[in-house]
Amino acid sequence: MRKPQVLPSEEVPQTAAVLLDSLRARSPRVHCITNSVAQNFTANVLLAAGCVPSMTLSSEEIGDFVAGAHALLVNLGTFDCERRTAAERAVEAARRGTIPWVLDPVFVDRAPARATFANLLIGRAPKVLRLNRAEFAALAGGEPTESALAAYARGHGVTIGLSGATDWIADGERLATVANGHVLMAKVTAMGCAASALVAACLAVEPDTWRATASALTIIGVAGELAGARAEGPGSFAVAILDALHKLDAPTLIVQAKVT
Amino acid sequence: MRKPQVLPSEEVPQTAAVLLDSLRARSPRVHCITNSVAQNFTANVLLAAGCVPSMTLSSEEIGDFVAGAHALLVNLGTFDCERRTAAERAVEAARRGTIPWVLDPVFVDRAPARATFANLLIGRAPKVLRLNRAEFAALAGGEPTESALAAYARGHGVTIGLSGATDWIADGERLATVANGHVLMAKVTAMGCAASALVAACLAVEPDTWRATASALTIIGVAGELAGARAEGPGSFAVAILDALHKLDAPTLIVQAKVT
Amino acid sequence: MRKPQVLPSEEVPQTAAVLLDSLRARSPRVHCITNSVAQNFTANVLLAAGCVPSMTLSSEEIGDFVAGAHALLVNLGTFDCERRTAAERAVEAARRGTIPWVLDPVFVDRAPARATFANLLIGRAPKVLRLNRAEFAALAGGEPTESALAAYARGHGVTIGLSGATDWIADGERLATVANGHVLMAKVTAMGCAASALVAACLAVEPDTWRATASALTIIGVAGELAGARAEGPGSFAVAILDALHKLDAPTLIVQAKVT
Repeated sequence: MRKPQVLPSEEVPQTAAVLLDSLRARSPRVHCITNSVAQNFTANVLLAAGCVPSMTLSSEEIGDFVAGAHALLVNLGTFDCERRTAAERAVEAARRGTIPWVLDPVFVDRAPARATFANLLIGRAPKVLRLNRAEFAALAGGEPTESALAAYARGHGVTIGLSGATDWIADGERLATVANGHVLMAKVTAMGCAASALVAACLAVEPDTWRATASALTIIGVAGELAGARAEGPGSFAVAILDALHKLDAPTLIVQAKVT
Repeated sequence: MRKPQVLPSEEVPQTAAVLLDSLRARSPRVHCITNSVAQNFTANVLLAAGCVPSMTLSSEEIGDFVAGAHALLVNLGTFDCERRTAAERAVEAARRGTIPWVLDPVFVDRAPARATFANLLIGRAPKVLRLNRAEFAALAGGEPTESALAAYARGHGVTIGLSGATDWIADGERLATVANGHVLMAKVTAMGCAASALVAACLAVEPDTWRATASALTIIGVAGELAGARAEGPGSFAVAILDALHKLDAPTLIVQAKVT
Repeated sequence: MRKPQVLPSEEVPQTAAVLLDSLRARSPRVHCITNSVAQNFTANVLLAAGCVPSMTLSSEEIGDFVAGAHALLVNLGTFDCERRTAAERAVEAARRGTIPWVLDPVFVDRAPARATFANLLIGRAPKVLRLNRAEFAALAGGEPTESALAAYARGHGVTIGLSGATDWIADGERLATVANGHVLMAKVTAMGCAASALVAACLAVEPDTWRATASALTIIGVAGELAGARAEGPGSFAVAILDALHKLDAPTLIVQAKVT
C-alpha cells in the first residue's frame, strides 16, 4: 500500500514555523530599497520578526551595505532618481554576492516609466516577484489565473507571490494558496511592502524560494488575523500586527495557517 | 412670513456626513507631494477615510500619476529639489486635467526661499490654501482677521482653511468656524498635513470648494475629539484618530460637529 | 568634618527633571537632519517631550532653518547626496550661530564612505556623539572601555553618549551610567535616532553638555521602562513610549532613574 502523497503546500505551515524560528535565531539583515512611505513600518515589521533592517540609498555605500546583507528588497513605491540608481547598484551587488532579492513592483500599473524599469529589473534575476493582481496584469498582459502565474514564473525563472484576499504562490511547478489575513491589512499603508520585506527575510534562511515565499506570506497573514481580532480600526491594527508578529509562536502559526 | 435664512455654515455638518459617505463609496485617489515626515501618517489618514493615497515624486512619472488622480496635495514640509520639480509638474498636470489641488505651505514663515516658491504656486490656482496663523501672516503680510482672510481669498481666488484651536474656512463670500479638535492634535507630527490631504480628498467628491474644505476640517476635528476621549497621550492619540476616522458615522459626525 | 563629595552622576536625575520642565516651558526647536526611516518617530518624540521639530533638507533653506533653531541633530541613517550637502550647510550654520549640535553616526561600521564623512563632521565640533558600541569601535578603532571613551572624548572635545543595555556618558572628566531602558527599545526602529534628538533638545536648555546628555538618556530610558510595563510587543511599545514621555513627571523620573 502506497503512502498518500504529501502536497508541497501541506508542508508550508510547518516550514513557516521553522523559518520564523530561524529568523529569530539568525537575525538576518535585510537591505530594503523601499519608498519613504513604507520605510518606517517595514523596518518595524522586520524587527518584530527578529531581523535587522537597513535602508540606505546612497550610491557610494549601497554596494557595501548590500554585499554584507543576507537579502535585498527592491520596492518601486516612490520612485525617484536616487532610488533608481540605488536599485541598479544594489541588484548588481546582490548578484555578485549571490544574495537573494525580491522585487515589489508597486503601482507598476500606473505609469509606463515604472513598468519599463520593472521589466528591466525582472531581467536581472530576482528570486521573487511580490505583487497584487493589477500589478501582475500590467506586467504579464493578462489576468493572474493559475496557468498565467505558472507560465510567467517559468518564463522568467521567478517565484510569484501574488497578494489578495487569498495569496497565491507559484514557481511554475508548485502552487500554494494562503487564505490568512484580515480586511484591515488593506487599510494600512505599506502592509504589502512590509510583506515583501518579510519574503526577503525568509529567503535569507531558506534556499527553497517557493517555500520561503509561501512561509513569509503565511506568517504575515496569521499575524494579521491575530491583530484583526484585537484591533478597533486601522490605527490599532498597525500596532497590533507588530505585537502579534513579535509574539507569534510555532503552534499558533501552524494551527491558524490556511494553506492549500 | 419669510422662512429664516439658513447660513451656509449651518449646512456644513450635513454636507460633511454626505462627503464622508462619498469618500467611502468612491475611494478617490489623492496624489500627495508631501514631506517625508508626513507621508506615512497622511497615507494612513487617507486610507482610514476610504481614499487611496499615492505619493511618488519621480519627474518621469508624476504627470501620469496626477493625471489619473482625483485630487492633488502639494505640501512644502521637507522641501528638497526633487519635491520642487515634482510640485511644478504635478500642478501643471492638475491644471491640464482640471484636477482640484490643495497647497499646504508648511513653515512658509521660516525661510524666504520657501515663501517665494509658495507665492509662485499660489499663482497657479490651487483651490484651497490650508495653513496655520503664522503661515498666513507670512504670506499675507498681516494677522488672519476675518476681513484679512476674506480679502486674501478674493484676491487670490482661493479658499482658505486656517487651522488653529478653532479652524476658519473662508472663500471671500462665506465664512465658517469649526471648533472641533483636540489639544493632542498639535502633539502629533503631520496632523495638519494629513488634514490637508483630507481637504484634497473632499475636493474630489464635492465641487463647492468651501463646502469641501469646511467638511474635511469638521471630519478630522470630530475624529480628533473622539480619539482624545480614548487616548492617554500623543502616541495612542495618533492611533486612535485613525480608528475614529475609520469608524466615524454620519449621526456621530452631525451631533459632534461644532460649526458656526 | 568634611561633607561627603557628591558625585556628578548623583545629580543627574534631579537635573533631568529640571531639563524636562525646561523643554516643556521653552519648547526649543530642534532641527533634525535624520534618515527618512526615523523622521516621523523622531518628530513625535520631540513633540511628546514638549519640543518643536523641523526637518527640511533643502540646501536653499537649511541655513535659515538652522540659524533660527535652538539645537541641531545630524544623523547619518539613510545617507544620500542631499542629506550630505544639507549636513555640511547645517553644521556651518550651527557653528556660525553657536547652536549646539549632536552627531549620530548610525551604521558607521557598515561602510567606509560613511566613516570618512563621520570623521569629517567630528572635526567640526559637535557637542555630543551619540552612538552604539559597534559604531564607537568603528570610529575609535577599539572597544568602548571606560578609558577609551574618556580618551576619545578628551581627544575630540566631545561628549559621548554610548547606548546599550546600560548607557555610558563620558566627557573625558566625568562618567555616568544610565541603566534604564527596556529590551523592546531595540525592537523599534529609530529609537536611538530619537534619543539623539532628545539629547539635542536638552542641549538647547542646558549649557553643560555632559549633564544635558546624561539627562536626555535618563529621560528616554525611564519613559522606555514605563512603556515596557504596558506594552504587549514592539508595536504597542512605540506608542506607549510617546505617551509615557508626554506624561512623565519629575517625581517619577527621579524615583525611576538608575544613574551611577
